[in-house]
Amino acid sequence: MFESAEIGHAIDDETYEAAVPALREALLDAQYDLHEQAGRQVIVLINGIEGAGKGETVKLLNEWMDPRYIEVRTFDQQTDEELAHPPVWRYWRQLPAKGRIGIFFGNWYSQMLQGRVHGRFKDAVLDQAISGAERLEKMLCDEGAVIFKFWFHLSKRQMKLRLKTLKDDPLHSWRISPLDWQQSRTYDKFVRFGERVLRRTSREYAPWHVIEGVDANYRSLTVGRLLLEGMQAALNKVEPEPKPQSSGPVASHDGELTLLDSLDLSVSLEKDDYKEALITEQARLSGNLRDKRMKRHALVAVFEGNDAAGKGGAIRRVAAALDPRQYAIVPIAAPTQDERAQPYLWRFWRQIPARGKFTIFDRSWYGRVLVERVEGLCSQSDWMRAYSEINDFEEQLTDFGLVVVKFWLAIDEQTQLTRFEEREKIPFKRYKITEDDWRNRNKWPQYREAVGEMVDRTSTEIAPWTLVEANDKRWARVKVLRTLNEALEAAFAKDKKK
Amino acid sequence: MFESAEIGHAIDDETYEAAVPALREALLDAQYDLHEQAGRQVIVLINGIEGAGKGETVKLLNEWMDPRYIEVRTFDQQTDEELAHPPVWRYWRQLPAKGRIGIFFGNWYSQMLQGRVHGRFKDAVLDQAISGAERLEKMLCDEGAVIFKFWFHLSKRQMKLRLKTLKDDPLHSWRISPLDWQQSRTYDKFVRFGERVLRRTSREYAPWHVIEGVDANYRSLTVGRLLLEGMQAALNKVEPEPKPQSSGPVASHDGELTLLDSLDLSVSLEKDDYKEALITEQARLSGNLRDKRMKRHALVAVFEGNDAAGKGGAIRRVAAALDPRQYAIVPIAAPTQDERAQPYLWRFWRQIPARGKFTIFDRSWYGRVLVERVEGLCSQSDWMRAYSEINDFEEQLTDFGLVVVKFWLAIDEQTQLTRFEEREKIPFKRYKITEDDWRNRNKWPQYREAVGEMVDRTSTEIAPWTLVEANDKRWARVKVLRTLNEALEAAFAKDKKK
Repeated sequence: MFESAEIGHAIDDETYEAAVPALREALLDAQYDLHEQAGRQVIVLINGIEGAGKGETVKLLNEWMDPRYIEVRTFDQQTDEELAHPPVWRYWRQLPAKGRIGIFFGNWYSQMLQGRVHGRFKDAVLDQAISGAERLEKMLCDEGAVIFKFWFHLSKRQMKLRLKTLKDDPLHSWRISPLDWQQSRTYDKFVRFGERVLRRTSREYAPWHVIEGVDANYRSLTVGRLLLEGMQAALNKVEPEPKPQSSGPVASHDGELTLLDSLDLSVSLEKDDYKEALITEQARLSGNLRDKRMKRHALVAVFEGNDAAGKGGAIRRVAAALDPRQYAIVPIAAPTQDERAQPYLWRFWRQIPARGKFTIFDRSWYGRVLVERVEGLCSQSDWMRAYSEINDFEEQLTDFGLVVVKFWLAIDEQTQLTRFEEREKIPFKRYKITEDDWRNRNKWPQYREAVGEMVDRTSTEIAPWTLVEANDKRWARVKVLRTLNEALEAAFAKDKKK
Repeated sequence: MFESAEIGHAIDDETYEAAVPALREALLDAQYDLHEQAGRQVIVLINGIEGAGKGETVKLLNEWMDPRYIEVRTFDQQTDEELAHPPVWRYWRQLPAKGRIGIFFGNWYSQMLQGRVHGRFKDAVLDQAISGAERLEKMLCDEGAVIFKFWFHLSKRQMKLRLKTLKDDPLHSWRISPLDWQQSRTYDKFVRFGERVLRRTSREYAPWHVIEGVDANYRSLTVGRLLLEGMQAALNKVEPEPKPQSSGPVASHDGELTLLDSLDLSVSLEKDDYKEALITEQARLSGNLRDKRMKRHALVAVFEGNDAAGKGGAIRRVAAALDPRQYAIVPIAAPTQDERAQPYLWRFWRQIPARGKFTIFDRSWYGRVLVERVEGLCSQSDWMRAYSEINDFEEQLTDFGLVVVKFWLAIDEQTQLTRFEEREKIPFKRYKITEDDWRNRNKWPQYREAVGEMVDRTSTEIAPWTLVEANDKRWARVKVLRTLNEALEAAFAKDKKK
């Protein structure tokens, strides 16, 4: 979920300086219009990783806009008065009036995250807090509020780097509070629970925006533009309209740099290294699946990828290692009549392995947000709501101990072309290439966009996507096997801890 | 919430026999149309109190409709196969296909309720299950399913009576399972947690229907009619339309008999008895508010009622007992400009007492579902969503230890007329009667309906409504004071248990 906010978005100074004046003017205009029409109150929630530029961004927004109509609220320790009232009272009393902007620096999300990260309660209570936040925001939006939720993100490495730089710099070292350092240690927890919170509370009326925090220019422009868009939308319609249910927070990017771009497709394996690695990983998988700890788990592997990326070959290398009684391969094609008479996820639920078993899905429930989306086989609202339905579905699987591993096998356009042409030349491979494949190829940009959004919205800590560089088939096969092994072993290791 | 399903709805045999043939024919028609169009699957969830006629109703539905297209599913202990899969898998595999009706006798609600009632988990886990059920149902409805949720209800007395009758009757005693008897003991818990579940999961796309289960004719006709309406609505629109967010389960009634009718307005107190009782209760209240256990609580009293029902007089009798530093009276009129610049509930949040204090609201947040609804001062969707917003609001108060007591002072039309005329005669009371009062009087039926719905949807275990028979002012004042005392003492008693 945060992957797209860890790939180094940056904007150079020249571009930045050129863009700022117009943005500031537009922001001021929107702010004044909003104030004069006085119809809506704007609530900006600031959350995320320490050192990711939260404070700087708030400071900048006050510079860019008219600070007379902005109220920055910091919620830290509760006051005596606040302690004498129900917990949510402190937020109610600080709500900005209609026509004004309230920036909540520290808010209900920071409160629930701190509580969970520091172990003051468990997931069930966190989920109660989450559902309380949802109801609060739904009500505020129904009452006309416009809510922005920003998660400022840094990768662990970037965070450490940032804290170190600040510490070494005598001018800045005062900024490192003990809490910051502590968070450096608890980064993993913070991100894990943060993901749970974002996944559950990103709603069409108040979506989360994940902002990569490394580069100040990128961060500032992105936040400014999102605010502007949101305020302009609010100005144009005083009554909020029902929209298709979007879901899952999305990393904001400039539309250019995506996760797929960050893949180095040139990686490859020599034949000898491949053979050795393959045999090792196959033996390891075979052993893992026969391990008695497997009784408490089941393995689900999802294979998606570009046409001709080598899904079939990879699946064969996985299966080759195993006892056929232990695994099942489920190829997913167009739904049958029985399947069409049921909700979308039904045909996948049918195939979910029992404990101790392994099911390989050759294409999967992600069809809805890939081919069905691109080919227009379902409505936009259908594929939009599918993201959160799929996250829910996978959470139900992992809650029960299933290990869900998802592969996107990625090749570049040229490699695909070469493979298509090869297939047409070799008689026993010719069945593998159809008119459809050539047609899909023309939709490369649409698929690229769909894949990017799919990974942003459904790559979760509980069921992350693994992007597999598949220009070199050997590399891809070994990476697939190794990832499966690592996932299983991680699950076994967790059992021990319990 | 269940009050309206405990007032003895009944339909005589003659009326019943006359209504059934047409209903059966219409149900069959709807069933066939649904089957042929094959667009929607129908899921009927059967829950509620043992002995309230769940089984009989399901049996009857199979008689009334074509059983070939009905699948009755009973979910009891999980099978081995079910235990080897994630919990929700058992429901997925039993879903009816589109065009068919699945009656789920025992379902996700029975599972979560049994777990909570038998103490296998606490509220936080129950709330997780609730939120899982919400997501499941939302997804099913988005996929075209039509979901009916029936809660068959009996008052505790009626349930005991029913179980006793069955036991004494040799022909029926086989029907009393140990579970039934056990439930007789755990009735209170079952109803308390049932209410929490219903309150949270009644959504516009899948609302709960509370059915009073005492009278078989009433029960059967009501369920049949609700099914018919729902299926016909589903046939007319294949795509579910966004509706204003309704909220809170509603007891189904024939539109005639409401809770207000069940009040005996003729009750009264003699002057001497009144004086004694008044002094006693005032002293008791004064003591309760000075009790040191009050530090952990706060008291909120809401006064609503017909015009001239005596709210002011009752409030004065409450205040008379108390130290003015300890309580505040908040009269609610039209909102000020500041208040209009905030969400609806803001002005009430401001006035919520700190711990140890007591606030009396002379009219309240219920204005939205009373005067604003009847006078058209807000949109239908605004007052519809207000029910669940108010329930949430009051839950936040009670979760924090506040005691919320809500009074509806009820008088009949004739008494109101007499009081209006008296007020016009007495100079120092004349200010109390305005043109508005006479105009409101013409809307008696609309207010009656609004009050009935308000009580059905917002009278909860955590913050129940007290209907006060107020034709006799003495009776009303004593009942108000006594109710406040009982509520506080109940809260103190609960502290002890913890």
